[in-house]
Amino acid sequence: MIAFNYKHLSSTADYVTTGSWTKKAFYEATKIFDPNEIFKSDEDICKKVPNIEELRLSKNAAYLHYCPNETIEGVAFHEIPKIDTPLIADMSSVILSEPLEVNKFSIIYAGAQKNIGPAGLTIVIINKEFMEMGNKNLPNILKYSEHSKSNSMLNTPPTFSWYIAGKVFKWMINLGGLDYFEKQNKLKASLLYNFIDNSDFYENTIDASSRSIMNVPFNLKESKFEEKFLSEAFNNGLLNLKGHRSVGGMRASIYNAMPLEGVKELIKFMDYFKSENG
Amino acid sequence: MIAFNYKHLSSTADYVTTGSWTKKAFYEATKIFDPNEIFKSDEDICKKVPNIEELRLSKNAAYLHYCPNETIEGVAFHEIPKIDTPLIADMSSVILSEPLEVNKFSIIYAGAQKNIGPAGLTIVIINKEFMEMGNKNLPNILKYSEHSKSNSMLNTPPTFSWYIAGKVFKWMINLGGLDYFEKQNKLKASLLYNFIDNSDFYENTIDASSRSIMNVPFNLKESKFEEKFLSEAFNNGLLNLKGHRSVGGMRASIYNAMPLEGVKELIKFMDYFKSENG
Repeated sequence: MIAFNYKHLSSTADYVTTGSWTKKAFYEATKIFDPNEIFKSDEDICKKVPNIEELRLSKNAAYLHYCPNETIEGVAFHEIPKIDTPLIADMSSVILSEPLEVNKFSIIYAGAQKNIGPAGLTIVIINKEFMEMGNKNLPNILKYSEHSKSNSMLNTPPTFSWYIAGKVFKWMINLGGLDYFEKQNKLKASLLYNFIDNSDFYENTIDASSRSIMNVPFNLKESKFEEKFLSEAFNNGLLNLKGHRSVGGMRASIYNAMPLEGVKELIKFMDYFKSENG
Repeated sequence: MIAFNYKHLSSTADYVTTGSWTKKAFYEATKIFDPNEIFKSDEDICKKVPNIEELRLSKNAAYLHYCPNETIEGVAFHEIPKIDTPLIADMSSVILSEPLEVNKFSIIYAGAQKNIGPAGLTIVIINKEFMEMGNKNLPNILKYSEHSKSNSMLNTPPTFSWYIAGKVFKWMINLGGLDYFEKQNKLKASLLYNFIDNSDFYENTIDASSRSIMNVPFNLKESKFEEKFLSEAFNNGLLNLKGHRSVGGMRASIYNAMPLEGVKELIKFMDYFKSENG
């Protein structure tokens, strides 16, 4: 949708691919115009994100697209790049995890299914001026401006997801808002990374500067124990720890809805499993 | 999405516009290629649908698009046209209301929010051969074939709507399936139309041959009573009777979920209101 809206502004747009979702976004854009992949990792899994300000940006790119937090690989940017190109960010797995300077972005988009509510809803935060620069000759359903004009009811919206999202926002505000969640999320992530780093049984290979506070992938150094780990974890009420099939291993997604106690339970189990099998 | 997928097959496609939704579909398609509006009503509201077989069809149209049941206007086709052009139907407000010969269509699509489940899900039934004829050079998210290949999980699907849709299908099967609902729906519609036609207080202006069994719009012959009608109906537990703002008046949507008793209650109230104000 982004490429359809803005390809008329330039012959290209810059894409920073640091994982599965940015690779898909770049691929989709190649079907629409001639985007420029200004960064891609030499390794299968990107272990360290680049400093976008130091990349060779295209002159007059319509926009720069990146993903501040790659869900599957657990690799993240912790600074918003200061560049002149309009900035577009896929924030699906990191939105609402901490305070955010939304005015630094031309478009932020995020699927609801991580920190917002049930799957089926996508939230778009768009700079008004940038919105009006969108291609006028598209079908209405592809125009951000038309969605905005009709208060997001151009077609029948996903009412249940929308309703639950409202409940989630109220729940968050009551708990102390983004400041509260930032503190909780950083605490949860640091407990888990510390435990993994101090263990000779588990490992996370992402560079410390690029680690996600939402998605913590980890491997058992001896992969033969993986299946046993997952089934015993399941029996201990620790679910959905299997990594994405494209990368394997384990992944703990510690979104806003995961309480500190959940992370502590996970660490307790990991410690126990290590003592039994290490 | 249809126009993107099939515009490479021909210079045009045929559109039959009988109401609000087909008008929108036609407008969207004009942004993508050069579709041919082979039927549009002379009146503001189409009162009688054409016999599609007798229209002047384009030679080699990529497809013909129509809507067997226009939700807002309550105007419907009761026969599937026998033509050589691939047939595409927006069945949002009529799917599952009665048995259907799906093999007569190249594509059937339907938003879930009428007879299937919560809004946010769209069901597509597509002929395999026609699916493979879709444009190969689109972004994956616009290709029917890619959605099919990934079992409708190319992106994160609207899980809650999907889950509830499964519950609705089981509920329908337990009650006797489409045969049961067809009988119920025809009974509900005929009771309501009969009452309206035999009244000098209410009217439905759609030609008897083109009346919807799902959406029954009606007017009070004296429109000054409309607001009073709606507010008293509301107080009697009869909700959502206001017609779409584009056409005014009243509309009773009697989808599968509306029991026969609901329609009887509506008629009882309409009769009472007429006796008080007629």
